[in-house]
Amino acid sequence: MLQSKPRLLTIEGGEGAGKSTVLSALRDALLADGCEVVCTREPGGTPLAERIRGLLLDAGDETVHPHTELLLMFAARAQHVQRVVLPALARGAWVVSDRFTDSSYAYQGAARGMDESFIAELERRAVGIEPGLTLLLDLGVAHARERTRGRDLLGGASPDRIERERDDFFERVREGFLARAARHPQRIRVLDAGPDAATVAAAALAVLADYRKALA
Amino acid sequence: MLQSKPRLLTIEGGEGAGKSTVLSALRDALLADGCEVVCTREPGGTPLAERIRGLLLDAGDETVHPHTELLLMFAARAQHVQRVVLPALARGAWVVSDRFTDSSYAYQGAARGMDESFIAELERRAVGIEPGLTLLLDLGVAHARERTRGRDLLGGASPDRIERERDDFFERVREGFLARAARHPQRIRVLDAGPDAATVAAAALAVLADYRKALA
Repeated sequence: MLQSKPRLLTIEGGEGAGKSTVLSALRDALLADGCEVVCTREPGGTPLAERIRGLLLDAGDETVHPHTELLLMFAARAQHVQRVVLPALARGAWVVSDRFTDSSYAYQGAARGMDESFIAELERRAVGIEPGLTLLLDLGVAHARERTRGRDLLGGASPDRIERERDDFFERVREGFLARAARHPQRIRVLDAGPDAATVAAAALAVLADYRKALA
Repeated sequence: MLQSKPRLLTIEGGEGAGKSTVLSALRDALLADGCEVVCTREPGGTPLAERIRGLLLDAGDETVHPHTELLLMFAARAQHVQRVVLPALARGAWVVSDRFTDSSYAYQGAARGMDESFIAELERRAVGIEPGLTLLLDLGVAHARERTRGRDLLGGASPDRIERERDDFFERVREGFLARAARHPQRIRVLDAGPDAATVAAAALAVLADYRKALA
């Protein structure tokens, strides 16, 4: 039902798992090979979608209903796919996205309890595509907390609406991601995000190299 | 499938049809009878939903994809229903809303061509309720243009993203509303919005009085 897009690569995982480092490593490897690479992120990736991201991460004092959150995520994603991802793929570029639809299954589905069949319906109707390869950076919640705490001590931004959730929320996010990986073992490759950044990036590059060999 | 809410009244129709005047008339009649009345509007009705409205009406230079528009509308509606409409109904208040889900069938469905079954799915999943009574203020597109032009000459706000659409768009909106009324003849009452405001308001009040008599 979903169209697989071989040159769409997505990186998934919780905060502190090292997604940015892996994204940079994939980008550099593709650039070094002469590919056009579009690096993007969700929610966001277009000016309008970034404004939706702003609503999602800071809703003021108002409690955001789970349905509202889910629909805002897919509104941003629909815009991102139509305005950025599909045009880039159509001209032969690679697209590397920090988060994509799997995040909605993990955060809005597994963690917030939204019905998975509704998420699948939104994916089918308003997204229509899936990545050729997804790297899931898996990290225990306590370990991720340590890393983001270190970041905060270094003067990072104060935690947003999602980051302020409790540990049991992030446990459900992690389980949600692992359940996605178990259901899509061909597309989603789980990487242990526990080691240092260079080790994780090297593992990601090895997966990319294998993937491209298989594509060719 | 949808739960009918007898005390939820909605007013539908294009720009210039006189929705505000009718809303005030209904509110005053209910207040005069000692009812609690919550007057609200869509998209909007909560601080977050009003911020979503802001994105919908002014997206800068960016073309808003129809899926993005549809999902933003339902994100705002989900928030509005959960935070304002349901709590008000639960305490016995009447809710009078300037626009509700029928507008999505007319604007995003009939006029933008979004699949009606998708809109129905969003309504079922993220809204779950329908008004007990809807007043559809029907007005020809040329007539509505005259009225809004008069408003603009009086120094009103400059037209927003939706108002800048062409006449054929508003013809489809009107047909979409009339098709909804044909499908839901019990709930949706069509009023000719051509006469002066006082005449239309009197017709609306007569419908409300009949409706309340039937409820009692």
